Amino acid sequence: MNFSLGVDYGSNSVRALVVRCSDGRELGACVVGYPSGKEGILLDGKDHHLARQHPGDYLTALEKCVRGALAEAAKTKGFRADRIIGIGVDTTGSSPIPVDAANRALGTVAKWRKNLNAQCWLWKDHTSWREAARITELAAKHRPQFIAKCGNTYSSEWFWSKIWHCLKTDRAVFDAAYSWVELSDWIPSVLAGVTDPREVRRGICAAGHKALYCDEWGGLPDKKFLSMLDPKLAGLRDRLYAKAHDATASAGALCKAWAGRLRLRAGIPIAIGEMDVHYGAIGSGIAEGTLVKVIGTSTCDCAVVPATKNVADIPGICGIVKGAILPGFYGIEAGQSAVGDIFKWWIETVCAGDAALYGRLEKEAAAKAPGASGLLALDWNNGNRTILVDPMLTGLLVGTTLHTTRAEIYRALIEATAFGARAIIERIEEYGVPVKRVVCAGGIAEKSPMLMQIYADVTGRTMQVAGSSQACALGSAVSAAVLAGEFRDFPSAQKAMTSVKPVQYKPRPAARKTYNRLYRLYMGLHDAFGGVNRASDLSRTMKELLEIQQSVTK
Amino acid sequence: MNFSLGVDYGSNSVRALVVRCSDGRELGACVVGYPSGKEGILLDGKDHHLARQHPGDYLTALEKCVRGALAEAAKTKGFRADRIIGIGVDTTGSSPIPVDAANRALGTVAKWRKNLNAQCWLWKDHTSWREAARITELAAKHRPQFIAKCGNTYSSEWFWSKIWHCLKTDRAVFDAAYSWVELSDWIPSVLAGVTDPREVRRGICAAGHKALYCDEWGGLPDKKFLSMLDPKLAGLRDRLYAKAHDATASAGALCKAWAGRLRLRAGIPIAIGEMDVHYGAIGSGIAEGTLVKVIGTSTCDCAVVPATKNVADIPGICGIVKGAILPGFYGIEAGQSAVGDIFKWWIETVCAGDAALYGRLEKEAAAKAPGASGLLALDWNNGNRTILVDPMLTGLLVGTTLHTTRAEIYRALIEATAFGARAIIERIEEYGVPVKRVVCAGGIAEKSPMLMQIYADVTGRTMQVAGSSQACALGSAVSAAVLAGEFRDFPSAQKAMTSVKPVQYKPRPAARKTYNRLYRLYMGLHDAFGGVNRASDLSRTMKELLEIQQSVTK
Repeated sequence: MNFSLGVDYGSNSVRALVVRCSDGRELGACVVGYPSGKEGILLDGKDHHLARQHPGDYLTALEKCVRGALAEAAKTKGFRADRIIGIGVDTTGSSPIPVDAANRALGTVAKWRKNLNAQCWLWKDHTSWREAARITELAAKHRPQFIAKCGNTYSSEWFWSKIWHCLKTDRAVFDAAYSWVELSDWIPSVLAGVTDPREVRRGICAAGHKALYCDEWGGLPDKKFLSMLDPKLAGLRDRLYAKAHDATASAGALCKAWAGRLRLRAGIPIAIGEMDVHYGAIGSGIAEGTLVKVIGTSTCDCAVVPATKNVADIPGICGIVKGAILPGFYGIEAGQSAVGDIFKWWIETVCAGDAALYGRLEKEAAAKAPGASGLLALDWNNGNRTILVDPMLTGLLVGTTLHTTRAEIYRALIEATAFGARAIIERIEEYGVPVKRVVCAGGIAEKSPMLMQIYADVTGRTMQVAGSSQACALGSAVSAAVLAGEFRDFPSAQKAMTSVKPVQYKPRPAARKTYNRLYRLYMGLHDAFGGVNRASDLSRTMKELLEIQQSVTK
Repeated sequence: MNFSLGVDYGSNSVRALVVRCSDGRELGACVVGYPSGKEGILLDGKDHHLARQHPGDYLTALEKCVRGALAEAAKTKGFRADRIIGIGVDTTGSSPIPVDAANRALGTVAKWRKNLNAQCWLWKDHTSWREAARITELAAKHRPQFIAKCGNTYSSEWFWSKIWHCLKTDRAVFDAAYSWVELSDWIPSVLAGVTDPREVRRGICAAGHKALYCDEWGGLPDKKFLSMLDPKLAGLRDRLYAKAHDATASAGALCKAWAGRLRLRAGIPIAIGEMDVHYGAIGSGIAEGTLVKVIGTSTCDCAVVPATKNVADIPGICGIVKGAILPGFYGIEAGQSAVGDIFKWWIETVCAGDAALYGRLEKEAAAKAPGASGLLALDWNNGNRTILVDPMLTGLLVGTTLHTTRAEIYRALIEATAFGARAIIERIEEYGVPVKRVVCAGGIAEKSPMLMQIYADVTGRTMQVAGSSQACALGSAVSAAVLAGEFRDFPSAQKAMTSVKPVQYKPRPAARKTYNRLYRLYMGLHDAFGGVNRASDLSRTMKELLEIQQSVTK
């Protein structure tokens, strides 16, 4: 009986999961929050675009959560830690870390300990929005192929924007950094005892989706292009990497020091690091025709298309990268910059509510019929990742009266995220990627039947829920099990180790009809405020919302 | 030493005020809420457009509040109730009441006691929005002069819309009503003991602003026009009135029965009834060049122009009526359908806050610089009265992020009402009515220095606050004092009896500059959603809000 260990680095905490390879049974799990900052995130009161994390937190929390998961697994008869045959790691991304020549994160070195720019630049850091816009501009002019694969817009959430912003605003940190390593590559490299950044095995997932890496043009962007940004970035290219790998490759073997700290067998293989949602997609059973939505603070959508097929670039889609999710497939990623974060903002920040208010508003909102509130919102409180790829967009709510309740607004915000989800599905289908089945993973999918039903009604697709509550960590464990030779390939490992829950949410015709009307109004606002339509007629929006309200409340 | 009694019927309560004629000193005041419904308003859970009041409440509350005010005044040496020389009454409007042939409000008659349609149709009842639209349509085609004086749009808040809606939806009530009397006319008529609706002295104020009355076309709309609505309305015309009066006329003399109930001298003159804000304007010192804003649940703006001048019709302005406010002047009325009501909705309904939260949010919001929140709102939670005259518009909020606070939204809502106020000032100035000075009356003007400063910064005008907290009741008392012969005319009565507070709010140049930018964005939304511009470019709205935010928070 063999076991696999999956480690999932989220935005606020890290989770370790011990899984039985034969059937995917989860024997032990443990979550540990990052001790620094606000819920693990270092913020700057003067700039709400800033979001960093202290890299030392990743290591102390890792030790705690792995030991916790092992302790829990040990309660199951037949479990032995030395039968863990591999480790898989997934993390947020793009979350680049400046490291010194010994692969130490700068933020863990005394001199840089307090400097925010020397820490990990968390995915949701948007300080580099100007740099992102400039990269988009330069690439459009000089290397259109670079950004064609990421929806024609390079994001402020990504690798080069962040490093360039560091160079422009904190030269000392940039100069002190020998290299920059994605969190998803750095953790495996630390576990493998890699002490030279040039030897860190880089995953194609972060490289391809966030760093403009593609084998077609010889890896990372050429020096000539990088020099247009800044010659210093061209210089950095040599200290990054020449090759990135899919999940058939290993990131290394567990070093003795970390084997001791984690109480695991030294030498077991470490799977190549992937971004959380990509391993989450694997843990949710991704296959051709299946869209996996990992719904959390934000939402990531993953789809795969066999690498043998011809996939067109899809405007507005974050990335199409060969090997990024499943080896042998193009990985397609899209997403919404804020989903759970919007609900949390509404309930905790605006309504100043506690955990109980979630339940109360859920109940109240669920009792409303689609369209009954007369409200319509745009889900852009953290910008729009797909399909507009514009972080400089903001939230909008229309249709409020003197009778509008907080529960109605809560529901309107959920509906807004569902409309955003529909826009993504329609865009990728339009470009030939079929979406026959949707599997949702993440806490919200399990906790909110209302949200799932709204998503089904809005998108017109049956929504399923991933069998595991820890799909990302499970996917990491699946990857480690394949790498360790427990399965011949990913599909057979997924068949054995992953599942969906029995509950299904099917579109209801009447709700679907109302949401079709609302979706047209949503797209009107979307196109007008998103700059797709610069001569939009919104004069009927408020009136149609009232008409829909009248038609469903009679 | 003579005294005057002003009675002010608000949306939730009635107030009596005893004033010394020589200097306007307020000797006694008393407020009594209407006992029925929710805060005095009868609602219908199934139709949020509906707002009615039980007319019996007006009479029981009147007796209580007058007695209360007299009791308080009696504490002042020299006061005697028999030295009250006149009574003035102001009320909300258009609030028509169906009455029987004896001038009894139907709602007070046992048979109709429980029928919502037999009650007073409160100003903010919008059930007749379809009828209003149809009246606008018919008038535009057949009698354009009728609606030219009320901004080219007849409102669902007004006399004919409401009566027609009653006829269409509750024929029994319509048939039982011998006539319909505005609340501002009905209360004086009751005090004067009038028992025949045809003998009720009607004020030009409600007649001209709400019932399409104008001497130019022979009073109320002609029968031919009314027949286009419904022949029954043409029939009703004979049972309404042929002539309406300005405040030089008397509504009658206090009858014995009511003199006994109120403990006043029988036979003292009763001033013609006016709508609350019109007497409020008089109580705030209205004169040519002075705009009076009565800021309450909604806001009414009043201006006057000498009747000798030529005043053009002003598109979007609720009404221009000769004699409506001050005798000898055109009265110009504009307004915003919800102001205090929006703040109340935000704090009490959405934030579920109590009285203390007003203070907390006020303090937090006041600490923010103009533009710092990145937010922009439309103040249309109860439709737009001026300058779009469209009750089928709703509220909008744009610019929210995951960091937006309830206090920032509170401030954005206040700013939205300020932008709405500016749109009104710019519209009337554009048509030749000068606004040199703004005097604000109502509780909000006194309680919120933040709001007053925002209004000054947004409109670019110095804001003053009416000296009396009870400007409407004071204006009623002024009218009664003039009618009773205590002063030779209104200006001399206003000089003696009214004042402004020492505090003044002056526009600050930096804030003004920021608000000018925001106002342009506000007008962009206003014109797009209000139907003024059907090919609007809103693609820069969110970006400009972020730019403004950046520029003021650096």
